[in-house]
Amino acid sequence: MSETKQDDSQDADRNWRSTCYEIIFEADTPAGKTFDVLLLIAILLSVLSLMLESVDSIQQKNPVLLRSAEWFFTILFTIEYSLRIACAPRPLRYIFSFYGVVDLLAILPTYLVALPIFHERAQGLSVIRALRLLRAFRIFKLAHMLSEAKSLREAIWASRAKIAVFLTFILISVVIVGSAMHLIERGTPGFDSIPESMYWAIVTMTTVGYGDISPVTPAGKTMAACMMMLGYCMIIVPTGIVSAEIASAGGKMVTTRTCPNCMSEGHDQDAQYCKYCSEEL
Amino acid sequence: MSETKQDDSQDADRNWRSTCYEIIFEADTPAGKTFDVLLLIAILLSVLSLMLESVDSIQQKNPVLLRSAEWFFTILFTIEYSLRIACAPRPLRYIFSFYGVVDLLAILPTYLVALPIFHERAQGLSVIRALRLLRAFRIFKLAHMLSEAKSLREAIWASRAKIAVFLTFILISVVIVGSAMHLIERGTPGFDSIPESMYWAIVTMTTVGYGDISPVTPAGKTMAACMMMLGYCMIIVPTGIVSAEIASAGGKMVTTRTCPNCMSEGHDQDAQYCKYCSEEL
Amino acid sequence: MSETKQDDSQDADRNWRSTCYEIIFEADTPAGKTFDVLLLIAILLSVLSLMLESVDSIQQKNPVLLRSAEWFFTILFTIEYSLRIACAPRPLRYIFSFYGVVDLLAILPTYLVALPIFHERAQGLSVIRALRLLRAFRIFKLAHMLSEAKSLREAIWASRAKIAVFLTFILISVVIVGSAMHLIERGTPGFDSIPESMYWAIVTMTTVGYGDISPVTPAGKTMAACMMMLGYCMIIVPTGIVSAEIASAGGKMVTTRTCPNCMSEGHDQDAQYCKYCSEEL
Amino acid sequence: MSETKQDDSQDADRNWRSTCYEIIFEADTPAGKTFDVLLLIAILLSVLSLMLESVDSIQQKNPVLLRSAEWFFTILFTIEYSLRIACAPRPLRYIFSFYGVVDLLAILPTYLVALPIFHERAQGLSVIRALRLLRAFRIFKLAHMLSEAKSLREAIWASRAKIAVFLTFILISVVIVGSAMHLIERGTPGFDSIPESMYWAIVTMTTVGYGDISPVTPAGKTMAACMMMLGYCMIIVPTGIVSAEIASAGGKMVTTRTCPNCMSEGHDQDAQYCKYCSEEL
Repeated sequence: MSETKQDDSQDADRNWRSTCYEIIFEADTPAGKTFDVLLLIAILLSVLSLMLESVDSIQQKNPVLLRSAEWFFTILFTIEYSLRIACAPRPLRYIFSFYGVVDLLAILPTYLVALPIFHERAQGLSVIRALRLLRAFRIFKLAHMLSEAKSLREAIWASRAKIAVFLTFILISVVIVGSAMHLIERGTPGFDSIPESMYWAIVTMTTVGYGDISPVTPAGKTMAACMMMLGYCMIIVPTGIVSAEIASAGGKMVTTRTCPNCMSEGHDQDAQYCKYCSEEL
Repeated sequence: MSETKQDDSQDADRNWRSTCYEIIFEADTPAGKTFDVLLLIAILLSVLSLMLESVDSIQQKNPVLLRSAEWFFTILFTIEYSLRIACAPRPLRYIFSFYGVVDLLAILPTYLVALPIFHERAQGLSVIRALRLLRAFRIFKLAHMLSEAKSLREAIWASRAKIAVFLTFILISVVIVGSAMHLIERGTPGFDSIPESMYWAIVTMTTVGYGDISPVTPAGKTMAACMMMLGYCMIIVPTGIVSAEIASAGGKMVTTRTCPNCMSEGHDQDAQYCKYCSEEL
Repeated sequence: MSETKQDDSQDADRNWRSTCYEIIFEADTPAGKTFDVLLLIAILLSVLSLMLESVDSIQQKNPVLLRSAEWFFTILFTIEYSLRIACAPRPLRYIFSFYGVVDLLAILPTYLVALPIFHERAQGLSVIRALRLLRAFRIFKLAHMLSEAKSLREAIWASRAKIAVFLTFILISVVIVGSAMHLIERGTPGFDSIPESMYWAIVTMTTVGYGDISPVTPAGKTMAACMMMLGYCMIIVPTGIVSAEIASAGGKMVTTRTCPNCMSEGHDQDAQYCKYCSEEL
Repeated sequence: MSETKQDDSQDADRNWRSTCYEIIFEADTPAGKTFDVLLLIAILLSVLSLMLESVDSIQQKNPVLLRSAEWFFTILFTIEYSLRIACAPRPLRYIFSFYGVVDLLAILPTYLVALPIFHERAQGLSVIRALRLLRAFRIFKLAHMLSEAKSLREAIWASRAKIAVFLTFILISVVIVGSAMHLIERGTPGFDSIPESMYWAIVTMTTVGYGDISPVTPAGKTMAACMMMLGYCMIIVPTGIVSAEIASAGGKMVTTRTCPNCMSEGHDQDAQYCKYCSEEL
């Protein structure tokens, strides 16, 4: 009879863990949705308290409140982290997953600051908690946004080769123009080394244009003008790529017909026969 | 007989109100069109007088003229506001509608400034009147622009889920990069708190690049360069989304007619005969 | 016999004028092409000499050369202008056309500077000559570029209503945000009047971001950040509009088929019958 | 027998040269791929050492190491250059090709600096080595990226006429606005000459907006605002052009196969049977 009891106890344990798993890790059940939304609100509030803490005037007025908030959220996230490890089918896989590492990094700094040795160094590290905002992307699992996010990701993924060609071209331009400007604007502050000139080249090419570094000599200005035109024209290319890709992805989405014979998908709207096995659609 | 008289009077009242309603609220009749155009001109002139009043040199030369203009437009808009309440079938619904609140806010400040107590505080509030410019969008009701505005709105509306995904991604990037830069550029003016660093991150990511805040350390510059590339690349995605959406919206507008004979679709808006089987459409 | 002589003389005159007209005004004959290219080179050189003259260091070294060049081009363009009037079938129509006025304005300043009374005022006006560069667009008549320029113009023209809606939206945003920032940033240099705030709003919204004017208060910075996001997102809309328009214009260009019965154009590639009169294509 | 020996020797020579040619110039064989990747790594390292050398603080700490690296890469590239000449079927054609000149320029500066006469002048010229990065584009020969790069190049090439029209329009706008601003902002630093005003016009039109030069007078600010709107709107046009071009290029790639039975076109690349009549393709 003790065996059955043990079985029951194991069953209860399994039930508890699977329920817990459904709530924490999945987002399809009502409880899971609620948990995800509450967690997101907690993350948003903890990031907000972090922001307020970084503003000196606010921090000096409410030091106790902000410190309490920090400890409250740290303990809350520690409980959540422990639960995740407890109910995950493969705890190690979760711990070393991207979100697992982020979850650990989000709670560590507060404990480290409490230790006297790490006090000075770890103070700023609590901003790592902002990374937990990435969990907001989980919210997309909740709604029909998932398909939108998926089609966006697919469009970007489909144009990855073109974007790689494009980025290679930009980076080579930045190195060459940066080197050239270092040579031309020798002596102008901000062009003292090639890495600094490359920083200027990126600032210019992306049309950000801070103005903290700007060419002074006529030759440098001419080169800068050419580079701006290049940067201005270059945004066209990837825009066109992704635009065409999304348009064609949209076109593909219309084709939801499946061949009754070979079960292949992706047939055009006007197709009368399967293009893979010639079966009538 | 007095009853008939009362009826007549009621009829006259009703006629007056419905005529007034047609002129003020609708834009299909010639009188309604004229009223809308005149109102828009009055709004433009009142905003122009507001602008001129804010320029010190002009304000000191013509204080009487500008003050007269302000009172003239305030009284004009007060009359219009009264008429709108008078002839609206449901006055309360108008008063609490968006345009009703804007119309009230546009005339209040001038009266408040006249009262001694509000004098100082209300002076600047007259700029609220600029909100009345939103009535310019009513002008689109006049012409064929309505359909253009509608198709634009529909394209943006159709891509709202994708844009939401995109904006979430931008905001999370801004928070994370802002926090990171606050950590990296500790001590540089402009990165004193996370909200300030986030302001910098938005200025950089949107490629505005004022240059009032810019990174100084090599690590900060490297991170800024990465962020610029990200911001530069990111404009591509929504452009592609809306572009594809407008293209497909334009495509849909053509394909709405079906041939009664061969059931083919895709006929142009101006087609009179089926282009596949010559049947009359 | 004197009549015939007069006729001959008239014929010769007519021939001379029509030949001259063909060379100067048209671009289809080899002589016309050559004239257009030579004229464009002369305009480019005259603009180049203008540019060099405006640089003080160059102007002080070669005052005689630059002055000679100015007079040379002025006299050349005067001769061209006289010829154009002489051989145009309707001289007045040419004189009051856009190019006629530009041609006159291009030669006037040099003569006016020579007169003692206008000396000071007219000195800068010679830059008007840069407007003659617009003649470069005539070069498009020479080659197959004409059709490209035409299809571009048509794409922009076809989307004019959408662009008008878009520009109205931008201008209203600029006025409202400019007024709001004038209220919020009261006292910050650069936000002293609504027109100045509007200038800032345009600089920010178009993502130019000089940085000569930038918000200082937290509220102003928040509003600026919102406006940047708006400006960043707004470039998407017209890009999508024109992009879709050009794509559909490209699609239309394929349709060069003409109905043999009703002579209508614009039939689709796959059309078998005229969509207007049901005639077989 | 000596003849045979000579033949053998010639054969060996030919074999050696053709093997060498395959490795160095081609990228299809495994050895060629390996060579290209190793060469690219060597180029990247040499550019990196150049960058580090330009940073004063690093250069003063490790002068010997950086000098050694420079000589190591110079000698390596000299050997590679000699081998290319040695095994190229037509050495002169290689020497005067684009890559041949770049390869020579990449090794020359180090030798020139060693000579006492050129010491001062040639020091900066070693940055020319950055041009060798262009060899990175050869890497595209390795993979499927070639077709992507090709389709990108074709899309840009197909829209070259439209881009030419667009660039002409921008350049003329820059000259005219530059001249006008030189006239309007007479006396403001940065608008002293037309070329300087044109530099400002390009900085503004491409939305870079350094802020080192910015208009001061109300008229100048108004003109600048108009120009920003123009520049902001103008990026739309080429984006639309290339976008439509890439979309149609993508569309064309699909439609190359024709059904042998019903002669229908527009079959997908992976189709095995005609989607209209079920005939095998």
